Amino acid sequence: MTNPEFSPFVAALRAIVGDKGVTTNPDDLAPWLSDWRGRYHGAAVAMVAPASALELSEVINLAARTRTAVVPQGGNSGMVGGATPDAQGAALLLSTRRMNAIRSIDPQARTVIAEAGVVLQTLHEAVAAKGLRFPLTLGGKGSATVGGLVSTNAGGTQVLRHGTMRALVEGIEAVLPDGALFEGLVTLKKDNRGYDLKHLLIGAEGTLGIVTAATLKLVPALIDRAVVWAGVRSPLAARELLLMLEDRAGREMEGFEIVPQRCLNNVLRHIPGTRAPLASAYPWHVLIEFARDRPDAPAPETFAETLLEEAFARGLVLDAAISASESQAEAFWKLRDSISEAERAEGPAMQHDISVPVAAMAQFIVDAGVAVEARFPGTEVAAFGHMGDGNVHFHVAAPAGSDPRQWPHDPGKEISAFVHDLVVAAGGSISAEHGIGQMKRDELERLGDPARLGAMKAIKRALDPHGIMNPGKLIVA
Amino acid sequence: MTNPEFSPFVAALRAIVGDKGVTTNPDDLAPWLSDWRGRYHGAAVAMVAPASALELSEVINLAARTRTAVVPQGGNSGMVGGATPDAQGAALLLSTRRMNAIRSIDPQARTVIAEAGVVLQTLHEAVAAKGLRFPLTLGGKGSATVGGLVSTNAGGTQVLRHGTMRALVEGIEAVLPDGALFEGLVTLKKDNRGYDLKHLLIGAEGTLGIVTAATLKLVPALIDRAVVWAGVRSPLAARELLLMLEDRAGREMEGFEIVPQRCLNNVLRHIPGTRAPLASAYPWHVLIEFARDRPDAPAPETFAETLLEEAFARGLVLDAAISASESQAEAFWKLRDSISEAERAEGPAMQHDISVPVAAMAQFIVDAGVAVEARFPGTEVAAFGHMGDGNVHFHVAAPAGSDPRQWPHDPGKEISAFVHDLVVAAGGSISAEHGIGQMKRDELERLGDPARLGAMKAIKRALDPHGIMNPGKLIVA
Repeated sequence: MTNPEFSPFVAALRAIVGDKGVTTNPDDLAPWLSDWRGRYHGAAVAMVAPASALELSEVINLAARTRTAVVPQGGNSGMVGGATPDAQGAALLLSTRRMNAIRSIDPQARTVIAEAGVVLQTLHEAVAAKGLRFPLTLGGKGSATVGGLVSTNAGGTQVLRHGTMRALVEGIEAVLPDGALFEGLVTLKKDNRGYDLKHLLIGAEGTLGIVTAATLKLVPALIDRAVVWAGVRSPLAARELLLMLEDRAGREMEGFEIVPQRCLNNVLRHIPGTRAPLASAYPWHVLIEFARDRPDAPAPETFAETLLEEAFARGLVLDAAISASESQAEAFWKLRDSISEAERAEGPAMQHDISVPVAAMAQFIVDAGVAVEARFPGTEVAAFGHMGDGNVHFHVAAPAGSDPRQWPHDPGKEISAFVHDLVVAAGGSISAEHGIGQMKRDELERLGDPARLGAMKAIKRALDPHGIMNPGKLIVA
Repeated sequence: MTNPEFSPFVAALRAIVGDKGVTTNPDDLAPWLSDWRGRYHGAAVAMVAPASALELSEVINLAARTRTAVVPQGGNSGMVGGATPDAQGAALLLSTRRMNAIRSIDPQARTVIAEAGVVLQTLHEAVAAKGLRFPLTLGGKGSATVGGLVSTNAGGTQVLRHGTMRALVEGIEAVLPDGALFEGLVTLKKDNRGYDLKHLLIGAEGTLGIVTAATLKLVPALIDRAVVWAGVRSPLAARELLLMLEDRAGREMEGFEIVPQRCLNNVLRHIPGTRAPLASAYPWHVLIEFARDRPDAPAPETFAETLLEEAFARGLVLDAAISASESQAEAFWKLRDSISEAERAEGPAMQHDISVPVAAMAQFIVDAGVAVEARFPGTEVAAFGHMGDGNVHFHVAAPAGSDPRQWPHDPGKEISAFVHDLVVAAGGSISAEHGIGQMKRDELERLGDPARLGAMKAIKRALDPHGIMNPGKLIVA
């Protein structure tokens, strides 16, 4: 799979993309050979940055002929090492950064065609200028790219109402492992011409081809929003509240996040400029966003007040604050978004991005927390996040004084296996939104449905017979 | 691929499914060896009807070991011969009729788990009893089964608001070509564990495996509805009306169908008990359904009145009638649903189930109609159907006196090729909702995107190396 003739290969690359499209200088390469968390480190023959889908297609064609491994990379802000090559140094790092055009925005059809290298933040701003909104957002929006978001079926904080990337991608253009260009950007509401390549490539993490552009669904721009921070008794109370709100405000609720007091304390301790949203402490908290994007929809703030009154009356909420301004709304979200950073300051922790059926999540948080802390004395479990999607980040903090270098390996790996076993037993997923990459590949091999794994491997071998597309990621080839 | 040892094979089948699960009597087999339109005729070793997914898995395992072709069949009401075996007589016809349990209905999650053999009408009634609705419906609802609807990604008349089957399937259980059981019924809102087998099997027409059950999305039961029949000047006027209504009534509009006067005349002439909905004739008509399934939504009838007044004022509508009762609403729909039957009474016609981008459909209807009638003198084009989805049934009627046996072949085939070329030139699909089956397989081979076709064939060979799953359908293996 490797190609020893480096220089002729690099010369061939230059012939395709020009000098400024190829980087071989180790110092220039370095930042792109480790993931942003510094967990994975690799090496590469060169980094190539095609300026168009056609150039990218020629590059893949060259890689296929020379059996060169290709590792696609967008913003390099993934969570599972999916964009980091292995250490052999034989792989070609393919950056989509130069394919960063927003080809068109169609206000009537409410779609945008964006190339793989467009940064999420840039996309948000471009469509906002037309009075529209791309409703997927996440912490890394300043670096995450359209290609990476599609290839990992990214989630984020607005999934509750608008779904993950899969629900927002109407069409894609992609280069397949043989260099063929799949042109699927034109969107038809009905099209039954066989196997759905679009859905096959969404979430394939670059192992079946490289997404070069996508047609994305847009929604009307927000008129206003209200963010609620509420104290609740338990995850089960939060679940009751979620059911009530889905019933009463299904179309207005954009986010429903759960936060244990422990996570809030860490944030208040470690993140400058944060302050407690409520007067006293509560075992658990929820952050709820109500948004209005239609003139005929209820005003979020008064709407939230009415619903909270009912929630109090039903004993589901112990105390609550409603954002009175956009800056306060952002302050509430900052508390939520700073949890991971604050936790790192506290010490080592094993992090698990998991999902179970939405109806089962509240009980799972309770039961799994007890089970883990009993099995691994001294650990503390903090489960927080997208409860409305049945997806929490299930973090297990090391006992005080644990060695941050040693702990992730032992007993960290054992803890993760234990957590994943609980997830599978609950009919859940060991990767809700971050993907598999290299971090969870072996766990997927261990725990995946054999029928599904078998089919995935057969598809991988069929579309990428030389195994050049992002090898070592997602599945054991 | 064929298996000469019929009797031991049939004995092995009986050992799996029992005597009443196997049919070899030619008279009992006959009705299932032709499609309901009588266009395709085949033969089979036997018909097997497993009673469970496990039995079906054992049957496929046997078929894989003996290299026996398997043709899955639900209600046998498909439009493209996808469930009819070839004439060799070596294939096994696999009926899902005995797998007809509704395993569970979850009112809170608004989902139902139905086995492949459940008839659509039965599904409608079962969920209605719980105050819920499965929002996909079509003419063949009395015979079409869940397995067939999933495997063909069926559409129908309510797609405008609720989407095709693909948008309504939350999970599937399926038997893969090696007999492995893929258990994907548990629905997670977020799950990034690799390639999406669910979407790969939806619309695969039984060529990659057999869907044995599906978890389907439900919506609240209808409170009431209003059906509008309106006369309009042209498809472009209809398009303007559609845009206005999507803007003003996007969430209340369930259907938007277009009907030329010619089709209405045929219906009034040939279908007993039908009467003209409007006092005079208009070049084109639209049927619009407004539905209410939330107490806070506007009352459909008054809502429709208000919107029509605006449409009149803007000159988009020439005359209109609003259903004053459920029976009148059904009468309007009957006019629409009887078009094909009335047309058959008129004489031979080539029928094309096509789609183009929604925004382009109005102009396509006009231009393609002119082009076809100019190129094939004496023919008359009638394009009708789901304009709101960019999908019409584009029928080309033979000149008066054409031989109904000869005409479909010559010049019928040439006419279809001409129409399909126009569709592809418009960036459209030669199969919007009926699928490819055996009818359009060669046209797909001729007109399909080579990159997509190449990937489809590779996937087919990878998952079905012996080519036993519904051979001769969808793609040229």
